[in-house]
Amino acid sequence: MKDVTFLVESVKKLLRRGATTHLLNMLTKVRPQDLAEAFKTLDESERNAAFRILADGHLPTAAGLVQEIHPTLRADLLRGMEPEAVARVLHGLSDDDIAGIVAERPDEERERLLSLMQRDASKEVQDLLEYDEETAGRIMTKRYVALPEETLVQEAIGAVQKAQAAEMVFYVYVVDDHARLSGVMSLRRLLTVPPGTPLREIMSTDVISVKAETDQEEVARIASRYDLLSVPVVDADNVLVGIITIDDIVDVMREEATEDFYKLAGTSDEERGLRSTLGAARIRLPWLFAAFAGGLLAALLIKAYAPLLGRATVLACFIPVVLGMGGNIGTQAATIMVRGLATGRITVLQTGQVIFKEIRIALLLGLIYGSLLGLAAVPIVGMGIAAGVAIGMSLLASMTMAAMVGSTLPVLLKTMHVDPAVATSPFVTTAVDLLGLLAFFGLASRQLVGG
Amino acid sequence: MKDVTFLVESVKKLLRRGATTHLLNMLTKVRPQDLAEAFKTLDESERNAAFRILADGHLPTAAGLVQEIHPTLRADLLRGMEPEAVARVLHGLSDDDIAGIVAERPDEERERLLSLMQRDASKEVQDLLEYDEETAGRIMTKRYVALPEETLVQEAIGAVQKAQAAEMVFYVYVVDDHARLSGVMSLRRLLTVPPGTPLREIMSTDVISVKAETDQEEVARIASRYDLLSVPVVDADNVLVGIITIDDIVDVMREEATEDFYKLAGTSDEERGLRSTLGAARIRLPWLFAAFAGGLLAALLIKAYAPLLGRATVLACFIPVVLGMGGNIGTQAATIMVRGLATGRITVLQTGQVIFKEIRIALLLGLIYGSLLGLAAVPIVGMGIAAGVAIGMSLLASMTMAAMVGSTLPVLLKTMHVDPAVATSPFVTTAVDLLGLLAFFGLASRQLVGG
Repeated sequence: MKDVTFLVESVKKLLRRGATTHLLNMLTKVRPQDLAEAFKTLDESERNAAFRILADGHLPTAAGLVQEIHPTLRADLLRGMEPEAVARVLHGLSDDDIAGIVAERPDEERERLLSLMQRDASKEVQDLLEYDEETAGRIMTKRYVALPEETLVQEAIGAVQKAQAAEMVFYVYVVDDHARLSGVMSLRRLLTVPPGTPLREIMSTDVISVKAETDQEEVARIASRYDLLSVPVVDADNVLVGIITIDDIVDVMREEATEDFYKLAGTSDEERGLRSTLGAARIRLPWLFAAFAGGLLAALLIKAYAPLLGRATVLACFIPVVLGMGGNIGTQAATIMVRGLATGRITVLQTGQVIFKEIRIALLLGLIYGSLLGLAAVPIVGMGIAAGVAIGMSLLASMTMAAMVGSTLPVLLKTMHVDPAVATSPFVTTAVDLLGLLAFFGLASRQLVGG
Repeated sequence: MKDVTFLVESVKKLLRRGATTHLLNMLTKVRPQDLAEAFKTLDESERNAAFRILADGHLPTAAGLVQEIHPTLRADLLRGMEPEAVARVLHGLSDDDIAGIVAERPDEERERLLSLMQRDASKEVQDLLEYDEETAGRIMTKRYVALPEETLVQEAIGAVQKAQAAEMVFYVYVVDDHARLSGVMSLRRLLTVPPGTPLREIMSTDVISVKAETDQEEVARIASRYDLLSVPVVDADNVLVGIITIDDIVDVMREEATEDFYKLAGTSDEERGLRSTLGAARIRLPWLFAAFAGGLLAALLIKAYAPLLGRATVLACFIPVVLGMGGNIGTQAATIMVRGLATGRITVLQTGQVIFKEIRIALLLGLIYGSLLGLAAVPIVGMGIAAGVAIGMSLLASMTMAAMVGSTLPVLLKTMHVDPAVATSPFVTTAVDLLGLLAFFGLASRQLVGG
């Protein structure tokens, strides 16, 4: 990855000197992705000053930067700009990128922006905005090459030459008389067949497509599974309405994986963009509340066993290891299930199999570590072998229940149409804490003090 | 994603009936990815029987299946097959795919396989195998179109038509007299310029490339950042030695994200393929040992405070909540750092900033939940306000230390050139358990019983 430190230093220096022309000259030579990276480390006033220079001096660079920069910083840059100026900057982007950015703008500005952009582009963008967020319809582009089945190869090549869609044309789609998707072929294939052949004769009719309502995560799974460079999007009648290109699919894969990492840990990837401590804390607050409430319940539960603890204080020593090992193996089971469901490696039908495997693993590891803990507990507790057996067994019980809870919870969430990754880790560790304590005190009181 | 249940049922039925021709006929019409998915749910004898029918009857389908199926199942299928037969099956695949599969074979078979394959293909595969696993060199293909700068556009189109590399040609690379990479252009661009133009005049000279030793994760970051459909690979002298296509990059992204999920939780993605409980348990055993050893230390630490606990048994009630909340916020901090480092969103220079932000968030959330816990503790403990304050403060301390440990550990691992994701979650929760207990007993003994 390119190091942008030097770029950042140069921008700062030129801004201080007020060397606007020089700065503009330099910035237009940088790739938009590197520019976005550099803008991340500029401070707010520098960022705004440099952006104004770009917006006034070189719209394509300004547009590239706006497209590549993080949404939060994008909102900062566009804040206070006249809608006319925003429309001018966005104009150079493709319809799907414009739709993504327009959707982020405040409601009152959205209409104004669309009406300010050229008639055609605005219509295309508006079409995309009618689909829900995170669906195929929202991330597709209307700029693709689709031709009738009777088109001759030489005409198809002509159409590709004239297509304004630019860099991302790698397939030509073929449609029937009712605009329904009927075939596909690669640009290279077009070059290797006689120019007078009609597309119908050479196209591949085995086309994989998605519906406009398909979740973008499913689109990514399909593209990755079948090695597609773009995925055609069709409506209920199989009419081609757009295509999703691989660059957007790659972005979706990254974002969805990141989102799952964040969610598993009990936060949200919105946190990434919010630079304020307060904003991040607000996102985590409710998820941690589940853990907190569970902790209070645990406190009350232990209090109920206070008489037992009073007679054998040393029992308290084993609370962290019993709960900690349970938490770890529960998180492992949850992680495997969440990731497996997300990538499609675990299908709904296979979840039972995975849950049983997780329980078997936990039983085995629980036997090993339970025996070790039991052995270690005998000298620590000093109350004979029975105490060791009870403590070892409670570790086994805690780990087994943890695997059960950890692997089952994501499946339950999925059947309730909730994202299986949602705060799984806090929920699992909290549930495991409570179940582990019950097992621990249940076994300890029975075997140790006959309670 | 296609449902393969019907396919699986048909295969089972046709195998039972011994309808080999019918079965072969059906299997050759299925996409290799769907075939691989179906084979996952067949039982072992069915899988082997169906594969033998394919290997005898239709090599391209057998090759496609071998390429798409999970490595563990692939090893099962190829086990006991003569190297000659394996070489025949592999022959239809591209060099990078063959290299990946040959690398998995036992040492003694590898040489034999290479010598059995056609001279050219074998040389290409051997070249790739000389690079380390998970580097650009290992996943690149030698089948690309590279032409001298003087080539005319019409000649370039001719070269593309003749290239046997097939579907994945979307760029034409341009090299200078010393085979050094000097430019690139898209296939579409080639179609839109006059046929007599030399490539030198129309190529883009701003080519992004990687070295053969570059880590595959870095290749994925670069391709995703700059929206590349293939990444050229060069040696130390900038000589073009291969290209990596987007389909392989997408696979790398998926695999690396999955690996990080598994590692964070304290296991490995090797577990995915191992269907045995024993194998999975063996992978997790050492990571859990860290948690176990930490848990034993925690037991000894609590035992040292037994006199204090003896005087105020009720203190034990708060161990789970103090450690649990710490564990959660520590895991959040670790997750954000690990994922940020993996995607390149957090650069090494920015880690300090992120650590401080995590600590600020933990302080804020620790103040909120510490106050709540303190309030709740007063009636539970029944020893006055001082007890509540001590318990609340120990939650604040535990959460703050957890954020510190969770965000710092991945950075430390990275500077030691260890994958930051390695078992972060078990290590962090264990460290947090010990630090949390110290804080808890330290504060409790000072404020509560003047210990």
